[in-house]
Formats: sequence, structure tokens, C-alpha cells
Amino acid sequence: MKTLIIVAHPKLVESGTQQFLKTSLANMSEVTWHVLAPKKTHFDVSNEQALLKAHDRIVFQFPLYWYSAPAILKQWEDEVLTRNFVYGTQQALAKKELGVVVSTGDPQRDFKAGSSEQFTLSELLRPYQALANKAQMTYLPPFTIFQFAYLSETEKQQLVVNYQQYITNTDFESFHGRELWFEQQLKQKIKVNPDLQKLPQILTAIQDNRENLEELGWTLSMIKDDEDE
Amino acid sequence: MKTLIIVAHPKLVESGTQQFLKTSLANMSEVTWHVLAPKKTHFDVSNEQALLKAHDRIVFQFPLYWYSAPAILKQWEDEVLTRNFVYGTQQALAKKELGVVVSTGDPQRDFKAGSSEQFTLSELLRPYQALANKAQMTYLPPFTIFQFAYLSETEKQQLVVNYQQYITNTDFESFHGRELWFEQQLKQKIKVNPDLQKLPQILTAIQDNRENLEELGWTLSMIKDDEDE
Repeated sequence: MKTLIIVAHPKLVESGTQQFLKTSLANMSEVTWHVLAPKKTHFDVSNEQALLKAHDRIVFQFPLYWYSAPAILKQWEDEVLTRNFVYGTQQALAKKELGVVVSTGDPQRDFKAGSSEQFTLSELLRPYQALANKAQMTYLPPFTIFQFAYLSETEKQQLVVNYQQYITNTDFESFHGRELWFEQQLKQKIKVNPDLQKLPQILTAIQDNRENLEELGWTLSMIKDDEDE
Repeated sequence: MKTLIIVAHPKLVESGTQQFLKTSLANMSEVTWHVLAPKKTHFDVSNEQALLKAHDRIVFQFPLYWYSAPAILKQWEDEVLTRNFVYGTQQALAKKELGVVVSTGDPQRDFKAGSSEQFTLSELLRPYQALANKAQMTYLPPFTIFQFAYLSETEKQQLVVNYQQYITNTDFESFHGRELWFEQQLKQKIKVNPDLQKLPQILTAIQDNRENLEELGWTLSMIKDDEDE
């Protein structure tokens, strides 16, 4: 799976969050980090469309400005996502995935009815969900980063792994999918550097775990069958 | 009441809808038609903020592009609506109103769950509602124009009146408010041109009507009081 990350941030270099996310993806293959340059007057439509075609998962990544993406992403949408390309004769994005990585300085608890922001991010990001719907894309659950500056080291480490999965894991939503992804990551790390003595043991442990879990799953479903009879 | 209409349309001159709306407001006082010029690189922030301060009702007017305003309005928001101006020390927009006039080439029936666009315009326009909330503004029900090109002459005449009220009527949502607005409009027309022989008669008829309606309202409320006892 190839992932295109479309980064829209007017102050990219000064953004701790964006630099952190970029670093998280070092050594990740099949990932394209595509920055929308705010100085441009117009986008090269055919270039941008070719880039979209060449990837399977498209991710809009931005800080929340007035409950939406910075203007540069909207400009990109208005210019690049032509009618024919999206839902006319070409339907070039059909069967691809659309993800949204959004960061905000406000805490998660503010985004609900009755709280200071009144709406959830799921509600505020509906225009992207509607776009995915129109383009016949699968809309992924938005990846949200609240108050990055206040995250602990442990939370940041967790963020790295969750973000990596959002970008590269075909099935990041199921436990099974996340486990398989960890196995693949470990295998690759061992391949690149066999000196990492402990990794093969961890990998075996995870695989054993998974087999045990699958057995338990079978047992549970048999018990359930008995109950249903 | 002073109304500021912020018009965001990349092809304003070619837009039949926008030209129609502009013409609808000819002779309307206390209305500022403010076009966001797409060629500008940056907005004059203090100019724009002064303009906002000088008006009571702020209206974003645009065609729906990818379920949101064209990029130029987002750029304006990102640059002009600074934190301090909106919700920091100044709260300069508090107690003002925010309206949205949005046009789309798709029919109204497409904007609901299960239909082709999946979401209502109320849902898609949440980011503006959230902005109003943050700025302590009153959010007006969005004024929607579906498939302008297919409207009949009668529908267009109705649109003129409804739009004029959305822009200039302090109370366009109640029947009473709309009636008062008609009275004012007629009075003004008679004042400007007393030769319009029939208008004073229409005005009297409307006023009589209103008095009758008020009487009926009293009678109804008395009947209800009797029932409640």
C-alpha cells in the first residue's frame, strides 16, 4: 500500500507537531511526504492528479484553523479535484482511502456538545467525509492530536506508533491488524540489523500470543454455538 | 442594523447567482457588498477588522466548493480572524450575527443521509457555526440557494424578497417580523415615490391584516387559558 501525505501547514518548519510526525516516518517505505507550498499561486493540476493516482491511501494532514484546514489545502482541493477527475468520467479516486491527520492546541474534552467548541471533530470534518463519499473513497477515522506540546514522553512514543500505523497499516483498526503490523515491523528490523538479539524472541512471543488468542477465539465461538442450540 | 456581505467567488462576474443577488440589493441602505479579491496575496488585516467592527450582521456568501467555501474565504478567515480579535482580549465580534448565503448546483434533496451527498448543509457548514459560537456571535440559519439556473421567474422573485430579508431584516424568522419588514419597505417606497397610487392601500391592508391576526392571537390564547383551567 502506498500512502500520500498531503501536508498543509503555513508555518511548517516552526511546527513541533509536524516535525515530530515527519521524524516518526523516517525509514518508512511507500510513504510520500508531500508539502503544499503556501507561496505558490497555482498548483500544477496534472502533477498533483498523477500523484494522487499513484497512491492508495491519501492523507490530509493539517492543524485545525477555524474548524477546518488552512486555506492552502482548500486551494489545492478547489484546483486539483476537478469534477471529471473525482466523479465525472474518470472517478480516479474510487476505491482509494481518505484519511485526515488533524492537530489542535485545544483539549479533546472541549470538542463535544455543551463544551466550549460545541462540536466533535468528526462533525467539524464532515466536508472531508462528504468528499470521500463523493469520490467513492473509504473515509478513515480521523487521526487526532490534541495539545501536542503537553504530551509526556510515553504519550509521544505511543503517538509515533499510532501515527505510523495510521499511515502504513492497511488494517490499523482491528487488534489482529495491529498485531500483524508489529510482526512485519519487527521482521524488517531484524532483517536490516540481525544484531538486535532480543527482537527475534519478541517476535516469537507475539506470534505465540496470537496463536493462543486464535485458539481462545475458537473456544469462545464453540461455547457460543452450544449456547445458541 | 448594518450588514456586511463578504462575497467569496473566484468567478464573480460570470456567476449568474451572484449578479442576481447583487442586483436584489440595489437601493438597500446600510448594506456593504464586500468582494474578496482572489488575486491578493494577503489581506489588510486592520482594514478588514475595522469593516467587521462597523457592522452588526456579518454574512459569508459563496458557492459550495467541496462542501465548504472557496479557498479565498478560508484565507481571509485565517488571516483576519486573529485570536485576540475574536476570543482573546478584544472579542470584537461578540453580540454580532453571522449568516451564511450558500449556493449549489445540486438539488436540495441530495443533501440528506442516504442521498448522494449524505449530509445536510447544516451539517456541512458546522465550521461556520463553530466559529460563531467561539466568537459569541448569533448564528443565523444558513440561506441556501439550490440550482439557481433552474428557478422559475416566480421562484426568483421569491428569492429576491427572501434574500433582502436575510440581509436587512432584524427579525426575518418570525411571521410578525417579516410583516413589519414589508410595511417598512412599502412606507419607504411611498415616501420615495408618492405616485405609486396603490401602495398606500396595500400598506393599509397589511396593517389591518396584522391587527386582525393579533386579535385572533389573543382570542386563541384566551381559549387555551380556559382549557388549561
